[in-house]
Amino acid sequence: MNVNNDAVTPLTHDPRRADRYVVGVDYGTLSGRAVVVRVRDGAELGSAIFEYPHGVISERLPGDPAGGPGDGPRLAPDWALQHPLDWVGVLRTAVPEALRAAGVQPGDVVGIGTDFTASTPLPVRADGTPLCLLDELAGRPHAYPKLWKHHAAQPQADRINAVARDSGQPWLARYGGKLSSEWQFAKALQVLEEDPEIYARCERWIEAADWIVWQLTGVESRNVCTAGYKGVFQDDRYPSAEFLAKLDPGLAGLVTEKVEHPLSQLGGRAGGLTAQAAQWTGLNPGTSVSVGNVDAHVTAAAVRATGSGQLVAIMGTSTCLVINGEQLREVPGMCGVALGGIVPGRWGYEAGQSGVGDLFAWLVDNAVPASYVEAARAAGETVHQYLSRLAARQAVGEHGLLALDWLNGNRSILVDHHLSGVLVGLTLDTRAEDLYRALVEATAFGARRIVDAFDDSGVPVREFVAAGGLTANPFVMQVYADVLNRPISVGPEQGSALGSAIHAAVAAGEYPDIHTASAAMGSVRRDAYLPRAGEAAAYAELYLEYRALHDHFGQYGGDTGTGVLHRLRAIRNAARVDAARVEATAVGQAAGGEHG
Amino acid sequence: MNVNNDAVTPLTHDPRRADRYVVGVDYGTLSGRAVVVRVRDGAELGSAIFEYPHGVISERLPGDPAGGPGDGPRLAPDWALQHPLDWVGVLRTAVPEALRAAGVQPGDVVGIGTDFTASTPLPVRADGTPLCLLDELAGRPHAYPKLWKHHAAQPQADRINAVARDSGQPWLARYGGKLSSEWQFAKALQVLEEDPEIYARCERWIEAADWIVWQLTGVESRNVCTAGYKGVFQDDRYPSAEFLAKLDPGLAGLVTEKVEHPLSQLGGRAGGLTAQAAQWTGLNPGTSVSVGNVDAHVTAAAVRATGSGQLVAIMGTSTCLVINGEQLREVPGMCGVALGGIVPGRWGYEAGQSGVGDLFAWLVDNAVPASYVEAARAAGETVHQYLSRLAARQAVGEHGLLALDWLNGNRSILVDHHLSGVLVGLTLDTRAEDLYRALVEATAFGARRIVDAFDDSGVPVREFVAAGGLTANPFVMQVYADVLNRPISVGPEQGSALGSAIHAAVAAGEYPDIHTASAAMGSVRRDAYLPRAGEAAAYAELYLEYRALHDHFGQYGGDTGTGVLHRLRAIRNAARVDAARVEATAVGQAAGGEHG
Repeated sequence: MNVNNDAVTPLTHDPRRADRYVVGVDYGTLSGRAVVVRVRDGAELGSAIFEYPHGVISERLPGDPAGGPGDGPRLAPDWALQHPLDWVGVLRTAVPEALRAAGVQPGDVVGIGTDFTASTPLPVRADGTPLCLLDELAGRPHAYPKLWKHHAAQPQADRINAVARDSGQPWLARYGGKLSSEWQFAKALQVLEEDPEIYARCERWIEAADWIVWQLTGVESRNVCTAGYKGVFQDDRYPSAEFLAKLDPGLAGLVTEKVEHPLSQLGGRAGGLTAQAAQWTGLNPGTSVSVGNVDAHVTAAAVRATGSGQLVAIMGTSTCLVINGEQLREVPGMCGVALGGIVPGRWGYEAGQSGVGDLFAWLVDNAVPASYVEAARAAGETVHQYLSRLAARQAVGEHGLLALDWLNGNRSILVDHHLSGVLVGLTLDTRAEDLYRALVEATAFGARRIVDAFDDSGVPVREFVAAGGLTANPFVMQVYADVLNRPISVGPEQGSALGSAIHAAVAAGEYPDIHTASAAMGSVRRDAYLPRAGEAAAYAELYLEYRALHDHFGQYGGDTGTGVLHRLRAIRNAARVDAARVEATAVGQAAGGEHG
Repeated sequence: MNVNNDAVTPLTHDPRRADRYVVGVDYGTLSGRAVVVRVRDGAELGSAIFEYPHGVISERLPGDPAGGPGDGPRLAPDWALQHPLDWVGVLRTAVPEALRAAGVQPGDVVGIGTDFTASTPLPVRADGTPLCLLDELAGRPHAYPKLWKHHAAQPQADRINAVARDSGQPWLARYGGKLSSEWQFAKALQVLEEDPEIYARCERWIEAADWIVWQLTGVESRNVCTAGYKGVFQDDRYPSAEFLAKLDPGLAGLVTEKVEHPLSQLGGRAGGLTAQAAQWTGLNPGTSVSVGNVDAHVTAAAVRATGSGQLVAIMGTSTCLVINGEQLREVPGMCGVALGGIVPGRWGYEAGQSGVGDLFAWLVDNAVPASYVEAARAAGETVHQYLSRLAARQAVGEHGLLALDWLNGNRSILVDHHLSGVLVGLTLDTRAEDLYRALVEATAFGARRIVDAFDDSGVPVREFVAAGGLTANPFVMQVYADVLNRPISVGPEQGSALGSAIHAAVAAGEYPDIHTASAAMGSVRRDAYLPRAGEAAAYAELYLEYRALHDHFGQYGGDTGTGVLHRLRAIRNAARVDAARVEATAVGQAAGGEHG
């Protein structure tokens, strides 16, 4: 194969050979998306989406394993689960649909690749069966996969961090000084403490990213990306049994008994499609399956940003930021750094914002009056488009508001999911478009805080590449360019599935490495948005205000500041638990009455 | 007349005399309301409302003096004006309608009384003609009455306070250490500085409370209440010419030339109805007219709370709090104290919250989604009722939010109208009823902060009496009882107009004094709401959080705190002035284009 490592134009493939195709599958928070992509140039020929029937399970468990959401046991605050059958549904529904839409024959598909949200771990048996699919455990919340945004393990994360600090764990600095409650170990410790039987019956504790590859290939594999970022695999080892025992004696064997497995590099081949998986997907048995990956990290390949200093921001409900560096650096408040975490051989850094598009959707769903909805409809726009158009007319600062973008907690750089949103400057003149703009700006300030942290720590950001659904909103993109005061390159909206397809092509041997495949199959509009001088200067001033508020509410331990947010959260959670208890009692009494 | 000073039951009047009636007129922010009340027991026989055609003028001046709102010159941020013809409209429309509704003959009406928002001063000629009604001045914003919530004179208030402090003015402590930008002197200084010609042509600078009495009687009078609270009349004198000259040499003659006039005690007779006013109202010429009064202060009589230690909170769009004390005390952050300011002979204290019902209305108008409006309609409820019902189900703290109730600035105890609202604890789970409850609680915390200030300063609060429109909402009342942790007595929703009627009866000689008339004609439900122990304890904890946030954002001068609110306001106002300039230029260019 004749490829040029530096090329950004489509490569010429051997014209005597028929076109080959790869399938990429992106597992998101609410749905899975499959694309069929041409190997020689990355052209997308067909795609399909499968919405998870159970969605995000945050209120109640489903009543039975195959049932709908919302009729089983009630969950505590901050829980977020998923259902593994929803993920299999993507293979059974979206993949065949995408193939049909593309008009591509199974024999012409050389590989399939997947990416997943992370950390989304689940307890399974030695054969890969999720515990939540066992009849006798279907009513047990801890038997289910814990979605990335399950934030109920914050107390466990706090203890892990305290013990790691006290015992001088060398890996702690690789995670910005704090492990997130979103990650594997905090979630595993929560299982052990709150439902020891589930923990005991869990034979493998595995990321969904690897579990889905297991379903495709029939064999367990573990990818270096989730192991490095979410599983604390550093310098060729996981945290020691001694460390784990300090958290809880019962946790000592977590790594050796339930996690440890040889790791596979990204872009590698995990195996061939099983007969079962071939039946699900409509592909041929034995089709190459690439190693599992994470939705954010896989996107770097899709947007031709696998080089050092190219920061990729995948902007959707939340934003994940990944960047390659040549050297290992310790960046305070980062999610993590892993060698080969994005592409083999380089140090891959990850940071994140726990809520971005989710914030705008929250506003539209919960705090926009009917008149706006009607005006948007009359104008043939979505409410987001309408609010964006109104907000875009404003001068910087005209709404008088400043927000902290923590409505879903803070992943970077504060690593605290018991923080919450703050809004200052409200007046009786405040309108929906003002709030919308303030939330957009807050997320942009949050992104800049992360860019600053990289720049300040020896991981220079040379380019800001935006991908994901929010790139479709020019107003949002322009605010980011102005707040960041740097050009923004824009990749495809649905970069993750393309990235998975690119990894599938590499695993199938169509390209020698991810860089080469990315140059041939990826796409990006360089410098699609440029900062405007006046707006950038005005935002520089407001960013100072944001940083001051950010540090006050995020790090200041006095009467106000972080303390008030933490106490409000604790009071809220206690009140909700009380309310659930009252309701459960009432339900129990009602049920008792029926039998009595 | 045989009256018992301590009676709280209706008095027996001489049965041989026919029933007499009084008319009370309450001038509110958006409308005026007239009631016809029976002298012997305060029974309301008829009422009528006249909505001001111009409402609150805050965006643009009317195009011509008789025209509708919104087509004249644009106003700067924080402006709020009114139109005096709207006030005359109340006399011409609501009073005759109320008389018709009551079926009362003019000959049986012994008096009319009025109350007004304050401080709402206007510049008039020596004969009482408002400058804004002169054709040549109708396009000049400073020719109009400045409504109480006109907040654009904050810079002037800041200078007045600084100069008063520096020159050791003895009266400053009578206003809690700070004059409000809402009051007469800041507004007059703004006129002088921004439109000296209007200031020069202003022959009398008068409160609307006194101006309306002038229209009824044909002679100028000045009441002790607005003079004391809003006009800084203390110890028998206004601020000296020397002090005023320090603010601006042109201001030296303000008191002697435009303000000074013999003061009249509340409940006194200002004069008899002119032929013109008789024609407007349908009453007989010569009918007794009582001295002007303020909507809040007049209410004390309506709710039988003219005794020492009875705090009356008139809860409407904003809340005004008044209380009588036996001694003169200096209460930090109070609006003011005036001898005879509520009833002759007692020290009347005033405090206020600049936004209360306005906050709930703001939420309903601007941040409640269509689904709630539809659900309220389906349930046959207003949106306020529906949100109150949902919010009432919650445990204290369950929403996780805490708000500072400064969306319209803070009148007490911070006396700063460039503060703005703060909301902390937002999450993706936050719903409209959570925000509603948080705003209700914020105003209750604000009220408690004021009660604490009185208690801490030697003006003990023995009873909390709520009046005004918000008393119709049991959820709001219960939250106040729980937050204040004391019983709440509830007066009539429309107490001000009744209070004015009571003052009219005293002025007409039907009762010997306000206390006696209040006991006979006023009404109150004592201890209508009692605090619940569990809720009160939970709120005690949250109130500490409120106080900490209150002090941080209200008084802390560091990077965060007050500074950020003030800077955001300054940036906002500068951006709005720029936007207005751009728009004016565009309009000018468009107009030029038409002519070119």
